[in-house]
Amino acid sequence: QVGWTDADVRAVDTARMLAADAVENVGNGHPGTAMSLAPLAYLLYQNVMVHDPSEPHWLGRDRFVLSAGHSSLTQYVQLYLNGYGLELSDLKALRTWGSATPGHPEVHHTTGVEITTGPLGSGLASAVGMAMAQRRQRGLLDPDASAGESPFDHHVWVIASDGDIMEGVSSEACSLAGHQELSNITVIYDQNFISIEDDTDISFSEDVAKRYEAYGWHVETVDWRGSTGSTGEATEDVEGVEQRAGAYVEDVDALYAALQASRERTDKPTLVLLRTIIAWPAPQAQDTGASHGSALGADEVAATKKLLGFDPEQTFPVEPEVLAHARKVIDRGQQARAAWQERYDAWRGANPERAALLDRLQDKTLPEGLAEAIPTFEADEKGVATRKASGEVLSALAPVMPELWGGSADLAGSNNTTMKGEPSFVPSSKATEMFPGHEYGRTLHFGIREHAMGMILNGIALEGLTRPYGGTFLVFSDYMRPAVRLASIQQAPVIYVWTHDSIGLGEDGPTHQPIEHLAALRAIPGLDVVRPADANETAVAWRTILQTVDHPSALALTRQNVPTFDRGKGGMASAEGVARGAYVLAEAEGGEPEVILIGTGSEVQLAVAARDTLQAEGVPTRVVSMPCREWFDEQDATYREEVLPAAVRARVSVEAGIAMGWRELVGDAGRSVSIEHFGASADYERLYQEFGVTAEAVVEAAQESL
Amino acid sequence: QVGWTDADVRAVDTARMLAADAVENVGNGHPGTAMSLAPLAYLLYQNVMVHDPSEPHWLGRDRFVLSAGHSSLTQYVQLYLNGYGLELSDLKALRTWGSATPGHPEVHHTTGVEITTGPLGSGLASAVGMAMAQRRQRGLLDPDASAGESPFDHHVWVIASDGDIMEGVSSEACSLAGHQELSNITVIYDQNFISIEDDTDISFSEDVAKRYEAYGWHVETVDWRGSTGSTGEATEDVEGVEQRAGAYVEDVDALYAALQASRERTDKPTLVLLRTIIAWPAPQAQDTGASHGSALGADEVAATKKLLGFDPEQTFPVEPEVLAHARKVIDRGQQARAAWQERYDAWRGANPERAALLDRLQDKTLPEGLAEAIPTFEADEKGVATRKASGEVLSALAPVMPELWGGSADLAGSNNTTMKGEPSFVPSSKATEMFPGHEYGRTLHFGIREHAMGMILNGIALEGLTRPYGGTFLVFSDYMRPAVRLASIQQAPVIYVWTHDSIGLGEDGPTHQPIEHLAALRAIPGLDVVRPADANETAVAWRTILQTVDHPSALALTRQNVPTFDRGKGGMASAEGVARGAYVLAEAEGGEPEVILIGTGSEVQLAVAARDTLQAEGVPTRVVSMPCREWFDEQDATYREEVLPAAVRARVSVEAGIAMGWRELVGDAGRSVSIEHFGASADYERLYQEFGVTAEAVVEAAQESL
Repeated sequence: QVGWTDADVRAVDTARMLAADAVENVGNGHPGTAMSLAPLAYLLYQNVMVHDPSEPHWLGRDRFVLSAGHSSLTQYVQLYLNGYGLELSDLKALRTWGSATPGHPEVHHTTGVEITTGPLGSGLASAVGMAMAQRRQRGLLDPDASAGESPFDHHVWVIASDGDIMEGVSSEACSLAGHQELSNITVIYDQNFISIEDDTDISFSEDVAKRYEAYGWHVETVDWRGSTGSTGEATEDVEGVEQRAGAYVEDVDALYAALQASRERTDKPTLVLLRTIIAWPAPQAQDTGASHGSALGADEVAATKKLLGFDPEQTFPVEPEVLAHARKVIDRGQQARAAWQERYDAWRGANPERAALLDRLQDKTLPEGLAEAIPTFEADEKGVATRKASGEVLSALAPVMPELWGGSADLAGSNNTTMKGEPSFVPSSKATEMFPGHEYGRTLHFGIREHAMGMILNGIALEGLTRPYGGTFLVFSDYMRPAVRLASIQQAPVIYVWTHDSIGLGEDGPTHQPIEHLAALRAIPGLDVVRPADANETAVAWRTILQTVDHPSALALTRQNVPTFDRGKGGMASAEGVARGAYVLAEAEGGEPEVILIGTGSEVQLAVAARDTLQAEGVPTRVVSMPCREWFDEQDATYREEVLPAAVRARVSVEAGIAMGWRELVGDAGRSVSIEHFGASADYERLYQEFGVTAEAVVEAAQESL
Repeated sequence: QVGWTDADVRAVDTARMLAADAVENVGNGHPGTAMSLAPLAYLLYQNVMVHDPSEPHWLGRDRFVLSAGHSSLTQYVQLYLNGYGLELSDLKALRTWGSATPGHPEVHHTTGVEITTGPLGSGLASAVGMAMAQRRQRGLLDPDASAGESPFDHHVWVIASDGDIMEGVSSEACSLAGHQELSNITVIYDQNFISIEDDTDISFSEDVAKRYEAYGWHVETVDWRGSTGSTGEATEDVEGVEQRAGAYVEDVDALYAALQASRERTDKPTLVLLRTIIAWPAPQAQDTGASHGSALGADEVAATKKLLGFDPEQTFPVEPEVLAHARKVIDRGQQARAAWQERYDAWRGANPERAALLDRLQDKTLPEGLAEAIPTFEADEKGVATRKASGEVLSALAPVMPELWGGSADLAGSNNTTMKGEPSFVPSSKATEMFPGHEYGRTLHFGIREHAMGMILNGIALEGLTRPYGGTFLVFSDYMRPAVRLASIQQAPVIYVWTHDSIGLGEDGPTHQPIEHLAALRAIPGLDVVRPADANETAVAWRTILQTVDHPSALALTRQNVPTFDRGKGGMASAEGVARGAYVLAEAEGGEPEVILIGTGSEVQLAVAARDTLQAEGVPTRVVSMPCREWFDEQDATYREEVLPAAVRARVSVEAGIAMGWRELVGDAGRSVSIEHFGASADYERLYQEFGVTAEAVVEAAQESL
């Protein structure tokens, strides 16, 4: 029993009307769910979640994820009522330029918002990542404490809508959450049988409870609609709005019991299937598709106010005593934090080394000795695949950088994403012969679930203490694209290890060969795409990426061997230039450069070979290795002019993908050696020949450009 | 009882060895599954599927989808044994340049291959589209026949692997298949507990049978491994390879019974959960992760041959009598086709109008009266959103083009994808108040499942008779991207209706506003991206897209109103120019153009306004509307020079997205008015101002460029 007083009930009804008024005021938005979920949201913020509005970044806080991001008012109204700093004026400014209350919740923008949501499924899938991160962090900092006793124990609470449940990314993530036995996450699924196309019966009739049980979740149904059973067929069991309305009981105690029980569970995640009527209790708008995404209309808002005992003429009605009552949560939060602080201080005293680690993780600084730990590679004409070099770098980083962890979507051996000897992050009962591990392990296994991997990486990064990476083939970055975009929007320092980065993949053929992907990824604002040319560039790329803590970075790595260039004294330039995005790898000889060859990744060797030919023909030729266009764009104009002097208009780019975007660098007079069609199944040497990505083609292009 | 003879058993064992030898021969590939699934594949081709190898495109054939595309040998070996034209030499050329046996099956490349697979989940999800298309086609052509009696009844058979089942896209599609009660699809899920990271226990422990039951599927377990129960925990129930090997019984009769029963069902789709041991019966390689994607090694292949009674020294061992026995399937297929032909001829006789329609659909020609049916729109300064114009075009097309059908991923009202008055494609029991419908209906409801929508559209297009479209917000094209790429690879004439195509979407904010999407989509080879400027351009765009039958096309449409330009006599040029990709919308006045303003979609009006200012300043200014860069690129050089004369180097592009790709057209001297960062939540007029996408900015850019 939660023991709500009249003041609580009034606060909930106030929340409903604030949501309706906010949408009415701006003329657009999503009022319905914010109204019907007001009891749930208030319950979470007032009675269930461990949090302190006066210290929103408190390390010990629970996390709240509004996966139903369109219902941002569900959260904004609580951030106001619970004293997170949002005021009525902010609610009035909903969805307007510069406001603290944008259409969907945005992390780093509104205090108290932990994650940017809106694209359906994304919040729920990322929340699984938060839950995984919490376990890993506890394992790093306080592995021996009993369950619930550690200052690093916290819970993740998610509100999900029908759309979140329908999206494949949540299926992937929740299957994995069940597998991982993540008992630190509770998802409340608001089953209101309404989506934008009105009655969800038109497209959605599966048994969600049974599906989540199949994933290994504990499922609890709390049915305010008064229908019975746990199947998704409630709309057929009931008889229309009026009847349902009569039977509608917002049993907050039952909900409270389900939520509290879910926190106590230690064996599996919990789905609370909460059956609601959208826009409750608006007399006409309730249970309608229109109430999902449109203002209710002045009359309907007034009628609802009347029903709930508010003055129908008054907008944004907040009684001072109601607000004062709700904000008592701050006192309770501070008390909880004080109690936590004692445990935390005791932990610090007992664990000075771990406390130092925590301090560093909170500061987001790199460990000492990092640069020294990263290997360098001997020059070698036969060379090594950059994916393999990347794997060696990762293994070398393992002992110095405990916060770094990651894995692959079932391609560990191909992506070289496993740090040698590190245990897998998996319940001990699920460890395998090939992958020993335990619940605090380090190597992640996403299964064949690239999209969930992307969202989970975001969740891990948002949790804030550890640094995640995830791998798959570059071509399958397409599966992850919505997650990559959200990493960028959220400035999450996620690292992608995308290998098999061109037709160099060979025999698997066109469905597995990226052609347009480098261009399409460079298109995403705020993502660094890094394609190193050899093993030493790979090492510097990793170091530079680890220094990047405010946005995501992607490595594009070869399957095939590439020569490890001979650098220094008489050879080529140092790979340190990678950190500036592009650098002169081989300078023109016999005068100022007449042509500049710009290569990335495995094609830099073609530029180098072409340079030999051109130099032999008496053309002073410079080779620029350009592993990261974004890093190069950040350099000052002087450096950029040094590398690519405006006076040299003869330029050739070479990259085994589409030329899109390269005109910017090669200019009107330049040429691009590229591939403008899908690949084919054959060995990679043959493909490079057949598709004309060769040193000869670069030479020819240079001659045309000159 | 299927009643296999010794010759059948020998043929199956031959198939295993051909698979092992083919991989051994080229040195790479996926032998394991092709070996263990040889009995299943042979059973399908010999005893279950309705097909005629001598007429691979027979209208009445069943469809086979190898969703486990990496196991392409599963299919190639059967295409050889069953006489589809593949020969031993083709198997020997596996995964080499120009061969008929690429790494993954490719439609339009290898006779008998219906669909390109490889990216996991894609085949299964597209197969759901095939099953939907079969029902729609039957509804168009022969709705009154009893079940199984129509020449348009056929069944879709799918082989899926663990990866197919883990991917979110198959979760979405299979949830929808259950909802749609698609009894014409049978999925055989090869549960072998092995993926690339070895034992699937490391990442996958859900109860797949229960999950599919939750979707509304009939699930049948056929357990050759001898474990019991339907959970995914078999590897814990058994005790290691040797023990399992002892218990392994390839009970083909049980499998046959399950498959035949699934064809008879009329109420729901069927999942046959087939438990196998990968690479069976290779003595060492069986049940190992290595056998999934690597050659077994000469010794292991020899040992397996010995075990099966083949000469260990002989590669590609095919006994003539075995081949002759297997190819008797051609006779049976021809008999089946002859029987079908009688039903078909009877149907033609009884249904001359429908027969004429079928002939047209098979010819892929457009109906008469199409151009006349497409509306034109009056000039109107206030105008109309292009999504709304698109909706009007669709409704006008409805009566003349019955093969056109589609819908939205829960955004029907926003995408304007519903043809007015057309019934929904949904079992009658699931029709709703807002969407009446029946099993042969026309309006598709994908639910909030964009990725499945994309794959389903591919499956519909591959079925071959109807023409599908699907809508969502442009930003969520990211969710569909793997499907869009596969549409392009497969030359499938799918139509995407992507609305809310810029910051013009307004208040929903950055997660909903496409910025990089136009560029990222143009990056996909073989996809036409069409962004009309007004209602009349939208109409011509639709007409041109419908004429495109060999690759996919995408419409990018506005949420907001855009002016309907005044065209003809004294006004602007006719919208007919859309069909050429770009055209001179407004010519320079007072002399040859000194500057060219190139706009797309909603930004063309900014170019027009900027032209007024520039003309007033005495600068002869041409406005080019460029709705489709791909169509423009296809024009001859003369036309392109006419529109964009090389002599005019002052050029400005304006598009509310990143500038990437526009340098190609504006050249070194040009400028692009663009947005290089994520959007924000506010009304769209404000966003255009704040982000500097305005007529003033275009004027300024033009002055810089001059």
